Amino acid sequence: MNVYDAIYTRRDIREFRPDPVPHEVLLRMLDAAHHAPSVGFMQPWSFVLVRDLEVRKRVRESFLRENALAAQRYEGERRTLYEKLTLEGILTSALNLCVTCDRTRGGAVLGRNSIPEMDLFSTCLAVQNLWLAGRAEGVGVGWLSIVDPGKLAQLLAIPEGVVPVAYLCVGYPREFAAEPMLQTSGWRERLPLRELVFSERYGEPEHDLFDATKPSESATSLRSKDGK
Amino acid sequence: MNVYDAIYTRRDIREFRPDPVPHEVLLRMLDAAHHAPSVGFMQPWSFVLVRDLEVRKRVRESFLRENALAAQRYEGERRTLYEKLTLEGILTSALNLCVTCDRTRGGAVLGRNSIPEMDLFSTCLAVQNLWLAGRAEGVGVGWLSIVDPGKLAQLLAIPEGVVPVAYLCVGYPREFAAEPMLQTSGWRERLPLRELVFSERYGEPEHDLFDATKPSESATSLRSKDGK
Repeated sequence: MNVYDAIYTRRDIREFRPDPVPHEVLLRMLDAAHHAPSVGFMQPWSFVLVRDLEVRKRVRESFLRENALAAQRYEGERRTLYEKLTLEGILTSALNLCVTCDRTRGGAVLGRNSIPEMDLFSTCLAVQNLWLAGRAEGVGVGWLSIVDPGKLAQLLAIPEGVVPVAYLCVGYPREFAAEPMLQTSGWRERLPLRELVFSERYGEPEHDLFDATKPSESATSLRSKDGK
Repeated sequence: MNVYDAIYTRRDIREFRPDPVPHEVLLRMLDAAHHAPSVGFMQPWSFVLVRDLEVRKRVRESFLRENALAAQRYEGERRTLYEKLTLEGILTSALNLCVTCDRTRGGAVLGRNSIPEMDLFSTCLAVQNLWLAGRAEGVGVGWLSIVDPGKLAQLLAIPEGVVPVAYLCVGYPREFAAEPMLQTSGWRERLPLRELVFSERYGEPEHDLFDATKPSESATSLRSKDGK
């Protein structure tokens, strides 16, 4: 699959079909993750495959607790909408996958002197590689962020100094929807790209890039031509 | 370009050709970044395009200061090797691009209750989208991590509450090398994927995935068949 097609049709998946993910497919996704850039070639990531339903039920209990707290931040219609959203596929996905970051790996890592979080950032780049490789394979990925990281560390025996950066639900999706679920459900709109691009200084509008590009050639129009 | 080809041939670029990046190419890269997943559809990223050579020289001064400090962490042959490495292309790239994260955007963000860093992580996913889109366009990206983020914030007028997550050098590269520069220079080796994949608990080897896949089908072999 073309890079741009993977990027534009990738979704955060919470509804899965029960089919298992073949070993060779999962291996290609993990190898793609492993070929992400990392600060000083540190490769701080590890991947814990979680298939055991008992463990996953414990993870889901943590989700339910955290989600009950999160729901309290909203009121009225917003609260009603929040409670209708499907926010996880922990048990229905083929497997769960925790991507960790070993903050001590490799000693004095080149390029990590000024920004110590570079190892966590590198781990996120690996997650996106895996996500896009999954999309190309027809495999869906959902990032579960409503969970207690301390609980995850306990359930998966993650040692001190290693951070569970991403807890992912992985499997064949019911569908790859045309737009993000939070958009179609009316939770939040996509921001116009033009408002996010600045020239030289934060907050200074960038004109050249957008004005030089004819409307018919704008990235959004390019996409709609494909029906995406 | 195929997703896997982009993933496997992407490099951290520090040596650039002087050619400018056309507006429509840069716009496609930025739009790819903007279509990354984000916690609660927060889209916390902004993109500051830095073309001004005077500003870039100030950024490079920060690099030189931070790099002098970083070099002191190594001794003997390691130090000699460190000092030979090309670690930035701030002035030789077509432009610099700072990807920021507005930690206050969007109020009570869905899914960011339990892990507040999810906004920073989302911003990293956008960086990887941009990096891969760039690879598909033949455009190289190098992440400058040896720089003082406070200095960046000052030079680019980045306000309180907004984090300069990634400072990127962007342009057409001298080459996309076959392997990472830190590997070919002998700085560090790629870790075997098998040692990074665990089953159910951190540190527990995963056998099924690797044993079920015949050596000729392993991800690494698949790659070498393509000569990559």
